[in-house]
Amino acid sequence: MKSKQWKLRARPTAMVGREHFDFVDGDVAAGEGEALVEVQYVSLDPAMRGWLNDAKSYVPPVGIGEVMRAIGVGKVVESKDPSLKEGDFVTGMTGVQTHASAPAKSWTKIAPELVPLPRWLGIVGMPGMTAYFGLFDVGAAKAGETLVVSAAAGAVGAVVGQLGKIHGMRVVGIAGGGDKCRYLVDELGFDAVVDYKNDDVKKKLREACPQGIDVYFDNVGGEILDIALGQLRKKARVVICGAISQYNSPNIVGPKNYLSLLVNRARMEGFVVFDFASRYAEAAMAIAKWHKEGKLKAREDIVEGIEQFPETLQKLFRGENFGKLILKV
Amino acid sequence: MKSKQWKLRARPTAMVGREHFDFVDGDVAAGEGEALVEVQYVSLDPAMRGWLNDAKSYVPPVGIGEVMRAIGVGKVVESKDPSLKEGDFVTGMTGVQTHASAPAKSWTKIAPELVPLPRWLGIVGMPGMTAYFGLFDVGAAKAGETLVVSAAAGAVGAVVGQLGKIHGMRVVGIAGGGDKCRYLVDELGFDAVVDYKNDDVKKKLREACPQGIDVYFDNVGGEILDIALGQLRKKARVVICGAISQYNSPNIVGPKNYLSLLVNRARMEGFVVFDFASRYAEAAMAIAKWHKEGKLKAREDIVEGIEQFPETLQKLFRGENFGKLILKV
Repeated sequence: MKSKQWKLRARPTAMVGREHFDFVDGDVAAGEGEALVEVQYVSLDPAMRGWLNDAKSYVPPVGIGEVMRAIGVGKVVESKDPSLKEGDFVTGMTGVQTHASAPAKSWTKIAPELVPLPRWLGIVGMPGMTAYFGLFDVGAAKAGETLVVSAAAGAVGAVVGQLGKIHGMRVVGIAGGGDKCRYLVDELGFDAVVDYKNDDVKKKLREACPQGIDVYFDNVGGEILDIALGQLRKKARVVICGAISQYNSPNIVGPKNYLSLLVNRARMEGFVVFDFASRYAEAAMAIAKWHKEGKLKAREDIVEGIEQFPETLQKLFRGENFGKLILKV
Repeated sequence: MKSKQWKLRARPTAMVGREHFDFVDGDVAAGEGEALVEVQYVSLDPAMRGWLNDAKSYVPPVGIGEVMRAIGVGKVVESKDPSLKEGDFVTGMTGVQTHASAPAKSWTKIAPELVPLPRWLGIVGMPGMTAYFGLFDVGAAKAGETLVVSAAAGAVGAVVGQLGKIHGMRVVGIAGGGDKCRYLVDELGFDAVVDYKNDDVKKKLREACPQGIDVYFDNVGGEILDIALGQLRKKARVVICGAISQYNSPNIVGPKNYLSLLVNRARMEGFVVFDFASRYAEAAMAIAKWHKEGKLKAREDIVEGIEQFPETLQKLFRGENFGKLILKV
């Protein structure tokens, strides 16, 4: 079957763009034990930038000439395995293409009648899992503590903040622009926000966290990480989930204030959500329940047309998306 | 009683030196409930540099015009408290001076017949406590793992490495110069060493840690911290004990490779040894026992003459001391 595919042409050294990809016609077919999926939505994630670097990481880089790696959702159109049948909806590593074939066991069946299809790439997908395990397991969040989350209107950040509220924490979000900041307070119930595009972040954050920060959930790195490190409380936990401000930079800036970890007996810890795969069901069930009860809201930013892939990816790194960024194929 | 005292004149912004202190004649007297001590040895520690900065830290800074803070050992020459008598040996915050008075409860009695006097500022003093709790409690060191320690021939580093060997770890030390490196391998039993003054640190460290680093005990910060971060194993622990390479620098360099914490699901954690005060006896007993059995060796670098204080402190920051640096009053 024909598949329109985005393949990696060259590795970016700074901002990723259209020049690093080829948009080509490919062929996909379901082999024995495989299922062929018509891709309906593709998730655009900050992690994609890391997959383009030829460096040791938690997964191998995307190879030159390979279809760009992506998580997606879609409908089975052909199955050569008894575990899946035509018409089933699944999620998995579809790649950025219109059709994808993979071993049946690598697809996960999903139920669009319970949660709408794109949301399986958001609150009950990888961003939701990342928020849940990052906050509760890595961050060891406790009721009554002060939680600060950066990229707070993003796919992960918005769930982190809402989980913090559900957990009884004081929640402060850092986001860019008045619309996002108002949304966090008015719609998601954050206690306070810092608009990094318009506020004096250091000053505003200190006002929002008079006792200091117990848990800082970092999605951005760079200067904001440094400011947060400077405002930690004793025994604080800094969760390193990502560093979107640094991914397209040839020279990563390290956190100058890291000695705050010493003074405050604090820790900074990274994680990869895949390590929690055996507990995804626990997190998905909890999040789906809170979502149904109206305690945890979802917001997607859906761009139509697979041909828009490179520009949509740039939108992510410019912080222009508002909610979970998804490409409708 | 007369006391020759080193008082802080001005705060250094870069390397500390004689120009930041005054050497003056003072008067000290034992008030009710206090004991007056003739100071015999004063400990010179990297932490001293931090105490000179007017910044929020785990202790208030030394004030302008105040006697420079220091841990020392000495003999009680006058006591106005029943808990101490003339001739008792004690350790405590003597400051850099010839005589010091303080409440009796702030002095800790020591036994020079068990361990020689200066060693109470070394392996069974604060450096020993720091090594013990930093490695076992913060670093969660396990037998069979690979431990890397920087400033490995220093007061804390040498104990960390030896504790690692006693604990069944593979131990790699980073130190400056052939003499120190030979000492670590030949005398202290380290498995390998990296000479940061003469080796390609990145390459040599990788050869010394073919499986990567499980525990990195950092005393230096800067470039060496970055190199170590780049060679972590999964679930590694980075213990931030100090950053001697950075203390005299007006512009602290942050660890560019901190995202290695994410890729490797690793953590970086700081601590302050005072938090473990209730367990000092446990650590001191264990270390004294291993020392007696010949499993843990001590080495002091003793400079004579309190008038040498500023230059001796500089020696510490230049890495010129070989063993625990102590000033004989």
